[in-house]
Amino acid sequence: MRQKRNAFYAQSGGVTSVINASACGVIETARQHKDKIGKVYAGHNGIVGALREELIDTGKESAKTIAALKHTPSGAFGSCRYKLKDLESNKAEYKRLLEVFKAHDIGYFFYNGGGDSQDTAHKVSQLGERMGYPITCIGVPKTVDNDLPYTDCSPGFGSVAKYVAVSTLEAGRDVASMCDSSTKVFILEVMGRHAGWIAAASGLASQQAGDPPHIILFPEIAFNKKKFMSQIKRDVKQHGYCVVVASEGAQYKDGRFIADAGRKDAFGHTQLGGVAPALAGMVTDELGYKNHWAVADYLQRAARHIASATDVEQAYAVGKAAVEFALAGKNAVMPIIKRKNTKRYSWTVDSVPLSKVANVEWKMPRDYISKNGYGITEKGREYLAPLISGEDYPPFKNGVPDYARLKKVMVTKKLKKGFKV
Amino acid sequence: MRQKRNAFYAQSGGVTSVINASACGVIETARQHKDKIGKVYAGHNGIVGALREELIDTGKESAKTIAALKHTPSGAFGSCRYKLKDLESNKAEYKRLLEVFKAHDIGYFFYNGGGDSQDTAHKVSQLGERMGYPITCIGVPKTVDNDLPYTDCSPGFGSVAKYVAVSTLEAGRDVASMCDSSTKVFILEVMGRHAGWIAAASGLASQQAGDPPHIILFPEIAFNKKKFMSQIKRDVKQHGYCVVVASEGAQYKDGRFIADAGRKDAFGHTQLGGVAPALAGMVTDELGYKNHWAVADYLQRAARHIASATDVEQAYAVGKAAVEFALAGKNAVMPIIKRKNTKRYSWTVDSVPLSKVANVEWKMPRDYISKNGYGITEKGREYLAPLISGEDYPPFKNGVPDYARLKKVMVTKKLKKGFKV
Repeated sequence: MRQKRNAFYAQSGGVTSVINASACGVIETARQHKDKIGKVYAGHNGIVGALREELIDTGKESAKTIAALKHTPSGAFGSCRYKLKDLESNKAEYKRLLEVFKAHDIGYFFYNGGGDSQDTAHKVSQLGERMGYPITCIGVPKTVDNDLPYTDCSPGFGSVAKYVAVSTLEAGRDVASMCDSSTKVFILEVMGRHAGWIAAASGLASQQAGDPPHIILFPEIAFNKKKFMSQIKRDVKQHGYCVVVASEGAQYKDGRFIADAGRKDAFGHTQLGGVAPALAGMVTDELGYKNHWAVADYLQRAARHIASATDVEQAYAVGKAAVEFALAGKNAVMPIIKRKNTKRYSWTVDSVPLSKVANVEWKMPRDYISKNGYGITEKGREYLAPLISGEDYPPFKNGVPDYARLKKVMVTKKLKKGFKV
Repeated sequence: MRQKRNAFYAQSGGVTSVINASACGVIETARQHKDKIGKVYAGHNGIVGALREELIDTGKESAKTIAALKHTPSGAFGSCRYKLKDLESNKAEYKRLLEVFKAHDIGYFFYNGGGDSQDTAHKVSQLGERMGYPITCIGVPKTVDNDLPYTDCSPGFGSVAKYVAVSTLEAGRDVASMCDSSTKVFILEVMGRHAGWIAAASGLASQQAGDPPHIILFPEIAFNKKKFMSQIKRDVKQHGYCVVVASEGAQYKDGRFIADAGRKDAFGHTQLGGVAPALAGMVTDELGYKNHWAVADYLQRAARHIASATDVEQAYAVGKAAVEFALAGKNAVMPIIKRKNTKRYSWTVDSVPLSKVANVEWKMPRDYISKNGYGITEKGREYLAPLISGEDYPPFKNGVPDYARLKKVMVTKKLKKGFKV
């Protein structure tokens, strides 16, 4: 391999409030090694940018702008929901990718995403080898779902967890103060289609017995309507109110989502889901309690203003480590967070081969969920608590966060042929 | 009037993230005047606490706890949705109120709420006079709806406004970064049944032309579905995506709420509203764009973690002024915020007679809303911007805000008869 080659960085899948902190880690670290890494190009809208040869020259952004990425949510270079097909059925895509990389002398591929992206990075590395274009491929972990294996946690999760814990605490106080004459049941819907990690984090809002949330609905625990109604009644009787936090993926025993209640509007159109309104409807119909519901949706994963300082640090650290691993000659690996101590929380960065990570989902251990299925255990709390610790406020201007704005200068295309994506 | 008498303080209606800052202002200021004000009793669950003779002795709370109220959201003493009926049709309630006040030697009545509460405070003052039990009644303004007259703004509004502006900015960034291959339309539902103040505040998220929100739906502007759809199409074409912020009270020309779309679930039950899912359904059906929606509900008015420093200061100031006005011999007045300068924002506290405030709603001026009805004007922005300025973070413990916990020691009842509320 030549001494100095360019790097390609791309963001993939659902964005988070700290994925740009990883970008910052990659770019700042690469800039410290100009003898080894020439330009850092970022894919415009993720991997699609590579296929379309739409590369953003990060070198045109000032050091100040790149530093500001650390406190800027969303995907600054654009992300995408685009999964490369498997090698055999669509080799053309992988070939195109390598053509673009070759044209721009890219020797390093940093792919910032979840399980699917790690799989892609792994395949690119294998194919490059086979096609005589060796390329160093490093995955950079990211997902609010916290379902990546081997790493103690996934960068992006801690901040959503903090948002959900804070929101549950605050809304819970609101409901408690008015339940005598007003709302008795409040339902907050949070993300998590397959795993209950995000909903579980709401349990951190509870500091004393009786504190909200009173019921957490996990996708891992089959929803039993009768049991749920009884629990709400008990909570309202005992505390005067009941706060429920529900995973969007909460489901019945047969796998049917609660949100997918077969509802139709007045015109017979299928109604867009929402587990919170579905549950609220049940509470109204069965118990008659006045209730309110909220759906946090993108607000939760974009809420950089209440990011976890731990999460921001880890997101930056895995970006930095990705470059350092590449320069140290590692290939086809992903940096991971390794927990060294829980009580006095400390962590370090290690690595794992991409071949092991690809398409493996880390589920919530059953012993993190309480026996009745509606809360978290002490063990779960011990795991979760450090991940939301510390605040890392962005700078503000005119009353709102002063987030980075990139120039996004595109690199001149070198290939004659386009590529339809 | 005797030299030293007790005070009664109560919180009323929907709580806010800064109503406790007003409580803090009342209690701390009263404690500085122990020669004039004896005990400060707080109504347990608002005015209902007075009717039931459930009084919390705030004197049992430490100075540290009372100070912590300044950074604690919700109604620390409990609030209620309970409007006293008019004097003629239910004199019994007012008489009971005065009996309780008399039994506990209450000479000062501080009522912290919106328009209805100011009306109640006014009536109590009048009746006291007539019944030979003169009592100093001071209203303390509070409402997220910003619809109290005479005051430049209502304490509680600035913090919701900040939450909504920040959330719109953050979620907008999220959608922008993924719109190439994913969600194109995002809809955020915010509070505001009669007035669009809260939705208007989302306009502060926009710092440059093209920034979200692209469409704001105000209750003041009749909803025109065709025009709305055309605007979304234009925005998606121009920006690649469209962010909509909708007041819960957004309605058709005939006064029908968008949220009240006559939807039924599979069992024929009327479906709980939500303007955001209703709009999302229209976008899916008419335009086919992938869309997401969020409903902030209580999260927005409880979000003390992102409160406006200006709002916190003002909430405290009106509580403090209420006590100072009472001690200065004023009666049946409400402290108001007076804007002295907009460009270099400054304000002071003045007062207005309760007789003027009672049951008057301050609506959004039409010239704060842009011509097409979907945004705010420069004039609107100038009014709104100072209200969200400054951050006032609560202290954190274990990753979540460390909000006050009161002991809530009840005063021994003195009246033999109870009162059914």
